[in-house]
Amino acid sequence: MRNVAVIGVGQSKFARRPDASIREIAFEAFKEAVEDAQITREEIQASLVCSATHYDKQRTPAGIIAEYLGLNPQPTFNVEAVCASSGVGVRIGWSFINSGLHDIVAVVGFQKMTELSSAEVQEVMGRSGDVMWESPFGTTMPAYFALYAQSHMQKHGTTQEQMAKVAVKNHFYATKNPKAMFQEEITIEDVLKSRIIASPLKRYDCCANSDGAACLILASEDVAAKIADKPVWVAGLGLASSPMTLTGRDTSYDSFDCTVEAAKQAYRMAGVGPDDVDLAEVHDCFTITEILNYEDLGFCERGQGGKLVEEEQTYLGGKIPVNIDGGLLAKGHPVGATGASQIRTLVKQLRGEAGATQVEEAKVGLAHNLGGIGMYCAVTILKT
Amino acid sequence: MRNVAVIGVGQSKFARRPDASIREIAFEAFKEAVEDAQITREEIQASLVCSATHYDKQRTPAGIIAEYLGLNPQPTFNVEAVCASSGVGVRIGWSFINSGLHDIVAVVGFQKMTELSSAEVQEVMGRSGDVMWESPFGTTMPAYFALYAQSHMQKHGTTQEQMAKVAVKNHFYATKNPKAMFQEEITIEDVLKSRIIASPLKRYDCCANSDGAACLILASEDVAAKIADKPVWVAGLGLASSPMTLTGRDTSYDSFDCTVEAAKQAYRMAGVGPDDVDLAEVHDCFTITEILNYEDLGFCERGQGGKLVEEEQTYLGGKIPVNIDGGLLAKGHPVGATGASQIRTLVKQLRGEAGATQVEEAKVGLAHNLGGIGMYCAVTILKT
Repeated sequence: MRNVAVIGVGQSKFARRPDASIREIAFEAFKEAVEDAQITREEIQASLVCSATHYDKQRTPAGIIAEYLGLNPQPTFNVEAVCASSGVGVRIGWSFINSGLHDIVAVVGFQKMTELSSAEVQEVMGRSGDVMWESPFGTTMPAYFALYAQSHMQKHGTTQEQMAKVAVKNHFYATKNPKAMFQEEITIEDVLKSRIIASPLKRYDCCANSDGAACLILASEDVAAKIADKPVWVAGLGLASSPMTLTGRDTSYDSFDCTVEAAKQAYRMAGVGPDDVDLAEVHDCFTITEILNYEDLGFCERGQGGKLVEEEQTYLGGKIPVNIDGGLLAKGHPVGATGASQIRTLVKQLRGEAGATQVEEAKVGLAHNLGGIGMYCAVTILKT
Repeated sequence: MRNVAVIGVGQSKFARRPDASIREIAFEAFKEAVEDAQITREEIQASLVCSATHYDKQRTPAGIIAEYLGLNPQPTFNVEAVCASSGVGVRIGWSFINSGLHDIVAVVGFQKMTELSSAEVQEVMGRSGDVMWESPFGTTMPAYFALYAQSHMQKHGTTQEQMAKVAVKNHFYATKNPKAMFQEEITIEDVLKSRIIASPLKRYDCCANSDGAACLILASEDVAAKIADKPVWVAGLGLASSPMTLTGRDTSYDSFDCTVEAAKQAYRMAGVGPDDVDLAEVHDCFTITEILNYEDLGFCERGQGGKLVEEEQTYLGGKIPVNIDGGLLAKGHPVGATGASQIRTLVKQLRGEAGATQVEEAKVGLAHNLGGIGMYCAVTILKT
């Protein structure tokens, strides 16, 4: 067993970024990560470029990004699992290092979503569902998750106010994260009064289309021992899939099977359980998703997710702080960047460098990265 | 070091396939590979779905393909390096098994290119060049490779007849491969008289848009020892990149740097050199590419590639048989399937199951899979 550490992290500002091309956004995150790792780009032996497709004109972006970052002739390619792309990238990077193929690997996640109109983005997102039997009938991304929300409300009594509380929490913490897209607190009232997108999901229940990049430098134990002051270890990895079609799922639509399975794998590999996790970054593409994630990851019993946030148990100081960097809802969700950004937040926390939002004596962090309509899920557990 | 074997191979017919969706084409290859490996689909622990993007409407196809193949809840995601996608898939599969994450992994490469018109395909292909500084100026895929052809002709005296000979050879061998798209022999005259696509490349110098899939089942040494009669070992892996932009390349355009680098890595890992290779599958997206590949892989001196094929040294019985399954030019080039199809051919040869085209006592095979405009290259060396 060759241990793998995260030795450098970086992130661009998440925002609407008409000022920067995909290569420039990727560079912002990459430069910060390389400096953080105290290495030079020449030491990087492979780059994994993680993004979803169809948001901009450039096909196969690894080619142009590796060139712009100065990473030729080292191996590079694209990793894609829609919103879980860079979560998957970490798994591949880990295995490249663990198997001895490489000693230092860069995971570069990015997305530029705002070159398209909102309507175009909805159409593109719909096509990450089954284009033969589902998306032609209007199942856009909010519609898919609205079904889960309706089911959870009906089955477990989850309320719109509880969902709104997720948005309130995440917007609150985003004000403490200068890299976050949104910088203003909102109230439950604001959420409830915002316009309906797909009932019961309203504007503030949904994450926004955004641009941004995040980068992680992974390294072998030997390298980390030499150059990292505070290496953070990749202790657990889980990856699982669910049927892409809703009709193919054996579920009552109040849970994501792939999250449950990926979490099981990651907990087992890391030798920890939900109670050992000091903080978590979970995939809150919609408010309801964060509530389902609490339950699927074992932070509370099934059906108790709404109550968990209502009681502020996922705030800093609560039972398990979740998304205290703003999450997808308020930090932004440039699809391919999200998994890497989650891990960046955890690494900063586990190093004790999180400033105003520092979780005291954080030793174990969990990142949960869901892809598409819940058909891919990557869970990564980090330890000091 | 945990060795990794290919224990099963499968391929659909390569052709225009209006009769089948991407999931159905993938299934054809997958079913054959699973049966060849003598396993059940339940034994597969992860699937890597390899394809280029934008040729059909389905985004993130791993989701729907894993579901259709019955592979949930196992990990799955998309691997993309344009034409080298499944060559890269083999590297990831190898590292997943070598690192102990999994024991049996399926690499599924596919593409359905003929849902688009020829003009649309050209536009899509152009966007695997730099969309900011190159492709808007008309650099389609044939145009890029025509530049290399012009340079090689000027620098080394390579002739159009020598290039034509590559097409003649590959069409000849395609007639012996029932899975190949084209089934008729052609002459040098036919090639020279075919219509100009991008001078000096004519119709028969170019591979055709095609549909198809190929699948490999990789397994750990322990598994292979139990169930495989004739395991074929992944002995060498190389992966390298070159700048995506032509203007970013420090070259006289008569060689692909990434091929030279990837080959060096693979030869070193396998402990063999070019003279030890009994047969090779190389990326003949255009006739000129096969000639460059001969030289870049060390099968002859720089500038001697044209002569090598002219003298029929890359025919069966020659110094080094190359693409004796028809190659991309005549077997077809459904982009994401090509790397896996190359390895399928080598595995059949190394098992002694290649029938009319069997290379006697074949023990070492090399697969060379080039991505896009030569910005990615995967080289895989297999041994009995």
